[in-house]
Amino acid sequence: MPSVTFLPSGVTVEAEVNESILDAARKAGLAVEIPCGGKGICKKCIVQVLSGGVIREDNPLLEKDMLDEGYALACKTLLSDPTQVRVRLLSNVENEKGVFSEQSEDIMLVDPALLPSKDDLQPLVGLIEITPVQPVAGDGRSDYDRFVIALRGALDSALDSGSSLDVDLPLALLRDLPEVIREDEALRVAYHIVGSLVRVVDVLPAKSASDEASAPARLGIALDIGTTTVALQLVDLTSGRIVASKTDYNGQIACGLDVISRINYAQKPDRLEELRSKVVKTINHLLQELLEEVGGQAARIYDMTVAANTTMVHLLLGVPPEYIRLDPYVPTVYEVPLYTAADLGIDICPAAPILIVPSVGSYLGGDIISGLLCTDLSKNTDDIYLFLDIGTNGELVLGNGDFLMGCACSAGPAFEGGGINQGMRASLGAIERVSVDPETGEATYSVIGGQTPKGICGSGMISLVANLLRSGWIDFAGQLERERPCKAIEINGRSATYVIEPAENMRVAVSENDIQNIIRAKAAIFSAMYLLLQNVGLGFEDLSGMMIAGGFGRYLDSDDAMAIGLLPKLIHDKVHFIGNTSVSGAHMALISARHRQLLFEVAHRMTYLDLSTELGYMDQYSAALFLPHTDASLFETIR
Amino acid sequence: MPSVTFLPSGVTVEAEVNESILDAARKAGLAVEIPCGGKGICKKCIVQVLSGGVIREDNPLLEKDMLDEGYALACKTLLSDPTQVRVRLLSNVENEKGVFSEQSEDIMLVDPALLPSKDDLQPLVGLIEITPVQPVAGDGRSDYDRFVIALRGALDSALDSGSSLDVDLPLALLRDLPEVIREDEALRVAYHIVGSLVRVVDVLPAKSASDEASAPARLGIALDIGTTTVALQLVDLTSGRIVASKTDYNGQIACGLDVISRINYAQKPDRLEELRSKVVKTINHLLQELLEEVGGQAARIYDMTVAANTTMVHLLLGVPPEYIRLDPYVPTVYEVPLYTAADLGIDICPAAPILIVPSVGSYLGGDIISGLLCTDLSKNTDDIYLFLDIGTNGELVLGNGDFLMGCACSAGPAFEGGGINQGMRASLGAIERVSVDPETGEATYSVIGGQTPKGICGSGMISLVANLLRSGWIDFAGQLERERPCKAIEINGRSATYVIEPAENMRVAVSENDIQNIIRAKAAIFSAMYLLLQNVGLGFEDLSGMMIAGGFGRYLDSDDAMAIGLLPKLIHDKVHFIGNTSVSGAHMALISARHRQLLFEVAHRMTYLDLSTELGYMDQYSAALFLPHTDASLFETIR
Repeated sequence: MPSVTFLPSGVTVEAEVNESILDAARKAGLAVEIPCGGKGICKKCIVQVLSGGVIREDNPLLEKDMLDEGYALACKTLLSDPTQVRVRLLSNVENEKGVFSEQSEDIMLVDPALLPSKDDLQPLVGLIEITPVQPVAGDGRSDYDRFVIALRGALDSALDSGSSLDVDLPLALLRDLPEVIREDEALRVAYHIVGSLVRVVDVLPAKSASDEASAPARLGIALDIGTTTVALQLVDLTSGRIVASKTDYNGQIACGLDVISRINYAQKPDRLEELRSKVVKTINHLLQELLEEVGGQAARIYDMTVAANTTMVHLLLGVPPEYIRLDPYVPTVYEVPLYTAADLGIDICPAAPILIVPSVGSYLGGDIISGLLCTDLSKNTDDIYLFLDIGTNGELVLGNGDFLMGCACSAGPAFEGGGINQGMRASLGAIERVSVDPETGEATYSVIGGQTPKGICGSGMISLVANLLRSGWIDFAGQLERERPCKAIEINGRSATYVIEPAENMRVAVSENDIQNIIRAKAAIFSAMYLLLQNVGLGFEDLSGMMIAGGFGRYLDSDDAMAIGLLPKLIHDKVHFIGNTSVSGAHMALISARHRQLLFEVAHRMTYLDLSTELGYMDQYSAALFLPHTDASLFETIR
Repeated sequence: MPSVTFLPSGVTVEAEVNESILDAARKAGLAVEIPCGGKGICKKCIVQVLSGGVIREDNPLLEKDMLDEGYALACKTLLSDPTQVRVRLLSNVENEKGVFSEQSEDIMLVDPALLPSKDDLQPLVGLIEITPVQPVAGDGRSDYDRFVIALRGALDSALDSGSSLDVDLPLALLRDLPEVIREDEALRVAYHIVGSLVRVVDVLPAKSASDEASAPARLGIALDIGTTTVALQLVDLTSGRIVASKTDYNGQIACGLDVISRINYAQKPDRLEELRSKVVKTINHLLQELLEEVGGQAARIYDMTVAANTTMVHLLLGVPPEYIRLDPYVPTVYEVPLYTAADLGIDICPAAPILIVPSVGSYLGGDIISGLLCTDLSKNTDDIYLFLDIGTNGELVLGNGDFLMGCACSAGPAFEGGGINQGMRASLGAIERVSVDPETGEATYSVIGGQTPKGICGSGMISLVANLLRSGWIDFAGQLERERPCKAIEINGRSATYVIEPAENMRVAVSENDIQNIIRAKAAIFSAMYLLLQNVGLGFEDLSGMMIAGGFGRYLDSDDAMAIGLLPKLIHDKVHFIGNTSVSGAHMALISARHRQLLFEVAHRMTYLDLSTELGYMDQYSAALFLPHTDASLFETIR
């Protein structure tokens, strides 16, 4: 067996002959980034073989001089002999926490008329106090018998349900029952009802439950699992109030940046389990941090609502996602039955039911259905609205009280910093705004956190492209000006680069290729909007409003977005940014029975438009590959 | 920390200061026998401290010369310094397999009119073939949707159930669904119905299921968990036939011989878990051996019926049993809900439902209810019958088609060799029959397996006592003859011993104390019978028949039993030995819906008589402490 030593850490592991460097690195606990899912095309897993024996696959991405210096793609290079390898560790994902805006403020971006009222407050898991008969000689009934009779009686009178309810008590709670039932005459039971079945979630002596009066009697979780980030809210189920919230990167990022890469990565069974356990670890870690912060008990978290895209749902469940991307694109599950926290490995009360917001298409998931609760599209109205969620993918829903039509487009990760040479997420050190001097063509810029720039984020790219266009330093096709001399523009043969910050130790520059990636992303989204409207015989002028959700949407300047052709001029004063609607919708469904029902109504009303089979989409897309568009009349004139 | 070395094995472990030698021995993986549950009264855990430091509790059981030689009770001796200890390992329990008669023959002892007919054949878990719609583009339904629709449709037409069934698909099966549903158009689903819920147990492509045509399509298990032995039958659920069966000692024996010792042992939480996992290990081990024997697949075992006494049920579930023996004697559960094999840790199809036969009292368990299916007491008849199950405890049920009354008495373990100095179970090397020469008083005997005698079993003791009495070598009080000279009787001061085999290397002898233990055991059972009859105003003459079950009952000679006063003379020709009825009843309930219903009907009809609170029981018991009884007219004259 070849042993492999990884520098700079110096950790050594034993590898199998013909094992890839990537697999050996994972064995060594190293986080090697593979946005493409290990297919040898993204070049992010590049390593340098310092000594020893490896077998490299031919790869056009690696030029001869790099090969000579020992560079190799970890995913496509197999080990044959003892080897020493230098790796580039994932810098801004697992080793550095992101900076996330406080999501609990997002709910304030939602129209108050859409939020649950006090009367709506009804979590899936209820609490009821019961007083079983105490054990006496000659009674002939067991603890379990007396418990079931008392619970059924209390529920029948509380719910007026008749006496046909069956009780489902998990074995773990039966094990505690003899002590609990003798500790106090009154018991507090957490339960939920499915059909004619009462599922018991927890049983506590009422005494000990009220001893903890300072802590909430029952907690719930609203969870948004994005491809990139996971947002978690801890909610007091009695008041509906958000107790605390936290966001972190999805631990699966190391296995691919977008859903397609994750699906590819998951094709081996042990890798599906790796992805499943990675996101569960992210969730449990966020949870633990939150509980330490507010001092709550994991065992009192009785309920959880999860909003996520179709692929993330499959991965959370450990269900193979591959049929999502294989013709005829039929996923394994849209409406997930109520599994328990124990089934999913989530560290809360083991019998807590997990409500997963239903998905409606391979690429139109529960995150969008959840998000619709935060928009006028969930209302009974004749006005037409368009909902747009820009994340790693772009999803769009058009409709009113009569119809809903949704679609998804692969905008690519450019708006989140992916596919951009010095791109990064909107975290500390990212350039977020760039002004361009019309005379000299040179840049002035602002950085998140006011620090030394490390790279540029999506809104920074849009700001840059918009201002280069306004000042005439790029043309409609995204080509940098080559005729007028400009210190900021470096020309190398047929390609050109725009230098935002020239200082050697903090240089940030953007290539024409980077600009093309932004153009392709905005073209994908704009043409999807256009086609969706066209499909129902409408135009932008018919929209009463447009709601933009997603972490990226939060930082977007609508003038800049119109300047590059991402948003049409016609809706200038009708755009609302409404933050992370996925987690806000999950929160509403967690605490309100009416909103839970609304989720399923919205999902059942939705028609899914598959753009990949839609004639005319490619024409629209090609027409949008200009700044702002071949049909400039749709956009604000360039200022 | 004191280190302890155990001889003869030489294994050394680190112990805590003040940890008992018993706990350290368990840590070292040694099986030390503690029939009394570690209360310092049975002396079976005696060890010899060879060197080092221990703190011994004063104990009247250990005489001065034994203390001088370093003897100590492992359960009551704490470690203070490094110590060397010699242990006596459990000889005939964990290190030697028992010899058990073939239990599948037991069903042949049951009246054929009571057995399930072909029409009754209906296991809890059914099989149905479904053909879900194949995935096509634009269908808009997930794999799960199409599966649920197909299953519901097939069940509705098969069961005429209307369309209100909810489907419960375990997460593990959802994970397999994408592959399974694409492998074959037809699927074979194993399921069972609870209320309006269809619980899916397994899903297989019909193709691959029929590829295994040589193996049974679905298997089930009938299980009897006795305090001493565990009996398991592997059953073809389609034909109802027993495929194979096996019996072994209950792994919990090392923690106490009777239920009271087990309950005491279980008082610490980690010891409850120890008992639970020990019996589960016994079951899984039996199962593995059977499957290797017949070549079946554990994953195709879809159903299991368990008959066991109330304490064994609590221990199998991991539910604290202590309230069974604490006033007011109210156990935690009589009718256990349907948990799954995964819940219980049984290595069969994880979603297989486990039906546990209901108990009706602290000491009247599902083993007895199950046994009643094998008797005329489960029939609608006016004739009165008495059912007697003699195991470590004695349980009795009296009644007819109108009433059933049951009780239990602590016969003690004497009939199974416990509490007898050289007592042992009915396995290889046990003396099972003893004749006594009326002239010389000397013994001739037969040994199970025809080997060198190692000890004497219960039926051997009854044979010996009956023949000593018939030949006049003991009196009505069980005292050995002291006046007439006899080589077989050794007199030491006030006590006497009867030597069956005098040869030094294979000596077997019985003390007067051993004889008293047999007398106490038969007195407990006889007086319980008497009182039960008296309670409903009947006598032995009113009985149409008496059915005796249990491993011990199998070897019992009814003449001997009447000679010592265990059974009354009046029922001489009405006694039927019907073997292990607990497992036979479990088998019937496993394959037949009618017999499952009968189990619950019988349990609900039963009145439990608590002898410990019954006036007159002690008087009856005292009257029965003679050979055969103070009222000798009830018995056969001594021949």
